[in-house]
Amino acid sequence: MPERHLHLNAFLMGVGHHEAAWRHPAADPAALLDVRHYQELARIAERGGFDSVFLADGVQVWGDVEHTAAHVFEPITLLTAMAAVTSRIGLIATASTSYTEPYNLARLFASLDHISGGRAGWNIVTTAGDKAAQNFSRDAAADHAERYERADEFLRVVTALWDSWADDALVVDRATGRYADPRRVRDVAHRGRFFQVKGPLNAPRSPQGHPLLVQAGSSEDGKVFAARWAEAVFTAHQTLESARSFYADLKGRLPAHGRPAESLKVLPGIVPVLGGTEAEAKRLADELDELIVPVRAVSQLSEMIGVDLTGHPLDQPLPPLPPVAAINGAQSRFALVRDLVERERLTLRALLSRLGGGRGHQVVAGTPEQIADHIELWFAGGAADGFNVMAPVLPTGLTDFVDTVIPELRARGLFREGYSGTTLRDHYGLAKPADGFSEIAAAAV
Amino acid sequence: MPERHLHLNAFLMGVGHHEAAWRHPAADPAALLDVRHYQELARIAERGGFDSVFLADGVQVWGDVEHTAAHVFEPITLLTAMAAVTSRIGLIATASTSYTEPYNLARLFASLDHISGGRAGWNIVTTAGDKAAQNFSRDAAADHAERYERADEFLRVVTALWDSWADDALVVDRATGRYADPRRVRDVAHRGRFFQVKGPLNAPRSPQGHPLLVQAGSSEDGKVFAARWAEAVFTAHQTLESARSFYADLKGRLPAHGRPAESLKVLPGIVPVLGGTEAEAKRLADELDELIVPVRAVSQLSEMIGVDLTGHPLDQPLPPLPPVAAINGAQSRFALVRDLVERERLTLRALLSRLGGGRGHQVVAGTPEQIADHIELWFAGGAADGFNVMAPVLPTGLTDFVDTVIPELRARGLFREGYSGTTLRDHYGLAKPADGFSEIAAAAV
Repeated sequence: MPERHLHLNAFLMGVGHHEAAWRHPAADPAALLDVRHYQELARIAERGGFDSVFLADGVQVWGDVEHTAAHVFEPITLLTAMAAVTSRIGLIATASTSYTEPYNLARLFASLDHISGGRAGWNIVTTAGDKAAQNFSRDAAADHAERYERADEFLRVVTALWDSWADDALVVDRATGRYADPRRVRDVAHRGRFFQVKGPLNAPRSPQGHPLLVQAGSSEDGKVFAARWAEAVFTAHQTLESARSFYADLKGRLPAHGRPAESLKVLPGIVPVLGGTEAEAKRLADELDELIVPVRAVSQLSEMIGVDLTGHPLDQPLPPLPPVAAINGAQSRFALVRDLVERERLTLRALLSRLGGGRGHQVVAGTPEQIADHIELWFAGGAADGFNVMAPVLPTGLTDFVDTVIPELRARGLFREGYSGTTLRDHYGLAKPADGFSEIAAAAV
Repeated sequence: MPERHLHLNAFLMGVGHHEAAWRHPAADPAALLDVRHYQELARIAERGGFDSVFLADGVQVWGDVEHTAAHVFEPITLLTAMAAVTSRIGLIATASTSYTEPYNLARLFASLDHISGGRAGWNIVTTAGDKAAQNFSRDAAADHAERYERADEFLRVVTALWDSWADDALVVDRATGRYADPRRVRDVAHRGRFFQVKGPLNAPRSPQGHPLLVQAGSSEDGKVFAARWAEAVFTAHQTLESARSFYADLKGRLPAHGRPAESLKVLPGIVPVLGGTEAEAKRLADELDELIVPVRAVSQLSEMIGVDLTGHPLDQPLPPLPPVAAINGAQSRFALVRDLVERERLTLRALLSRLGGGRGHQVVAGTPEQIADHIELWFAGGAADGFNVMAPVLPTGLTDFVDTVIPELRARGLFREGYSGTTLRDHYGLAKPADGFSEIAAAAV
């Protein structure tokens, strides 16, 4: 059995994951609008040997305009700009199956995969919330189950488009003028509930065949979807037990799809708040929490869990939250918050402080050794194949992680010394999917 | 009155605009799949001081798969990769209003504009043809008039989204945690025939306010649209008279929209086939034409004009073509071909040779002085504000143009010596559109 190595993804967000990062002296809010900041983050992560960088996305304004450090860039374009200044690190963009056309999205990701030499990944989201829907000629979002049904069909179309050119379709014979073998290019001819797509894609097969498929929904629908499609899963857990149970659950669903356990990597989020001493780290965490603007945090929390908490008194315990099944938003994140509130009987203010650093992801404040201990415990303990690293302040939190935690992980034999391959699939140890063309001719287009 | 200067756009296409370029010894077909080739083209064009580079696009396979050098990259991503290696040149991407959502496209272009520091442009197309429609859950394309009606509404939505943040919306006050002034961010609240979009966009206003709006449809619907929206128009003409009449027609439509003549630049296409002598240039043109594969050229022509000519004998005169109004494809390109066929009574083979170099654009084979003469004649003769330069083979045709034609144009005082500004709008001498916010507060979101 091959040595098992951690996978590390650098989840990049503005000038840091902590919601008040832009107010902290270590951050430069002007960097939010500057592509060079993001290119520099990609370079730092590549220097550290991270498997990939990742950008979240939404198709609406998040939180309240007044107190939220605004989004600027669309992820696929921003990652393309990062691709131009790096050569190895994977590039994972979030995009929605609910508000895009499969032909367009298949092209954008194939293009990023060609441009980056096989480093593209797609974090597939179904996009909860009516605010987003109202930007796309609808009054309200489709319900949770329908969003996932559409996502499933979307994936069937997109993967068929990526496979519509055989790996060897290009002939490029100048003498005869024959550029491609038409028997190695085929229609998709998809007719489903949501889409009719004839194909083929207007691009030859990309270096990875399929960009890496990533998913982050941890609801029941999300897990069903992940077991079928995802090759990496980002997930949020507050306790080792919760992460371990999620890990076992997800891996246990793979055999039904004929998939081995290692074909899907589970990466819980971690917000590493680093300090030379534990006290220093906790001071940074406190400094950041003190900068949270409650009205803004309540607005973001309400949007995240799909329950309106604006106007609730900050120092009162929270009202009883509805059952998970009644939520048409991000169900798994709602469930996490609901468990936390019930377990610890939190006031709204206490809850905001618990979530401000990582929106439900585990915040670990400590020394590099303590962060490495946490990572090792979860990795060795059947809770993670790696981590989605969410630096609270950027770039400092990422630079510190690369310079202090990664050497510690390497010293423990947990993280590889460098890149052994060139594609994102290489880094995650995932094979390139076959193109599905037989040795003999496919139907001509 | 300020000195009038030519505007030059480098229309980039694979390894050259001639449809058989990839077969010519001067081209390297492997470059088609290599982002570095395109990045190098952008660098060459910037060295020459071109206002912009431009990429065409379609959302279907063009021509026949067997003989067409395939598309690889999607334009917005490819231009983002070019943005990373250049600092001044404008970047114009084609995108369709028929098969995208305005919120998504507004974001992609705003993102490219932010990434490039104000160098983004959008060539707006409505996308003719049922082949494209069938990749987007439709059996056939909407009719010509409806496509333009949708395009008009699309532009109203997209420009409102770009204007949904005032230029001065960001406050970024770390002390109070106030990031933006909500009175300087507004909903779009669009409810029209095709779209309902609430807004605002999830990105602050981009450096140019609006990416430069470019258009290339020259039909009556196209001209109505251009007079309202376009700031630069790409157009194809075979004669000076045709170009002059189009120029006067389009400029004459502007006052009705309260627009001065110089607010829209007309750029006819030119395929400069360059040689040290005229004979050398004509030899290159002949070499390229001899590499045309007739079956492939007939297939592309049929798709371009929306009339099926496959199976027609090559050496017979063409059958009578239908009236322009009966065409649901690219009407103006069809009209150009129809005029050419009627004026010169061409056989199909002769027509293919006339179109192979530039798909209807003017092919001029000659010395740098002769090319400059042609450009000067049209520029001074009321037919052009500049040119859409379509090198037959790339990169050589672009390098030659930069090294021989541009110095000649500068010697004649027709082309500026270098860039005087930093944005695409600066190069074209077009102002940044006002954000439409009054001095006092707009409605809060």
